Amino acid sequence: MELTHIEHLGIAVKSLETAIPYYEEILGLKCYSIEEVADQKVKTAFFKIGQTKIELLESTSPEGTIAQFIEKRGEGIHHIAFATTGVQKALEEAESKGVRLIDKAPRKGAEGLNIAFLHPKSTMGVLTELCEDPNENK
Amino acid sequence: MELTHIEHLGIAVKSLETAIPYYEEILGLKCYSIEEVADQKVKTAFFKIGQTKIELLESTSPEGTIAQFIEKRGEGIHHIAFATTGVQKALEEAESKGVRLIDKAPRKGAEGLNIAFLHPKSTMGVLTELCEDPNENK
Repeated sequence: MELTHIEHLGIAVKSLETAIPYYEEILGLKCYSIEEVADQKVKTAFFKIGQTKIELLESTSPEGTIAQFIEKRGEGIHHIAFATTGVQKALEEAESKGVRLIDKAPRKGAEGLNIAFLHPKSTMGVLTELCEDPNENK
Repeated sequence: MELTHIEHLGIAVKSLETAIPYYEEILGLKCYSIEEVADQKVKTAFFKIGQTKIELLESTSPEGTIAQFIEKRGEGIHHIAFATTGVQKALEEAESKGVRLIDKAPRKGAEGLNIAFLHPKSTMGVLTELCEDPNENK
């Protein structure tokens, strides 16, 4: 598949209210957007550094995947998202090469991107997202 | 502090021999270097995607930090490394703001970079490396 850059890193945090000041005041990054993604049960805060975004993820429910991740492993890096020009094609290629998919087809993620996840069982423990900006290919 | 981009992501793997073909044949990235960093007890494999490198880390000893990380949490993303123009200054700033440091002064890392780590206790679980290319500031 053809990946162009790391679109974002998803980082699981207990509290955006605690985490945002660290990213702003210590690392010197600027939070440019806070968005709730209801179907993923998360509230997200976005920062940009070079080509890559940092997406802090706070769970909005104890049953959410982020809450469960933190319960098991503590706060930390949750997933890596690669930018590609065609998520559907990349999924088909990955599946044909034996990779287990979480999403068989792209769905809508934060910031209006088309996204899909590969299963960490097939990616040596790294929850891997593929994403494309639908406005870039118009 | 002033961070310019994500220099690399460190990913802990059990075996480079198993992991490299996934990154090359599925993700389509190219391994351009394999390097052993004896004092960190790791063998590393490097890939580049956009501005960022992916550094796969295989432990060369059961007592190494990567072996211990995998023992506790399984394979997965181990650390994030931000590029800065001055690691020493960034460390001083972080410490003055209450961040716990793993390295009080920069040391040599893979690829000849000057590197230093912040402690994950102060960074919401994200083992954070700061690094600078000494050749860029000459």
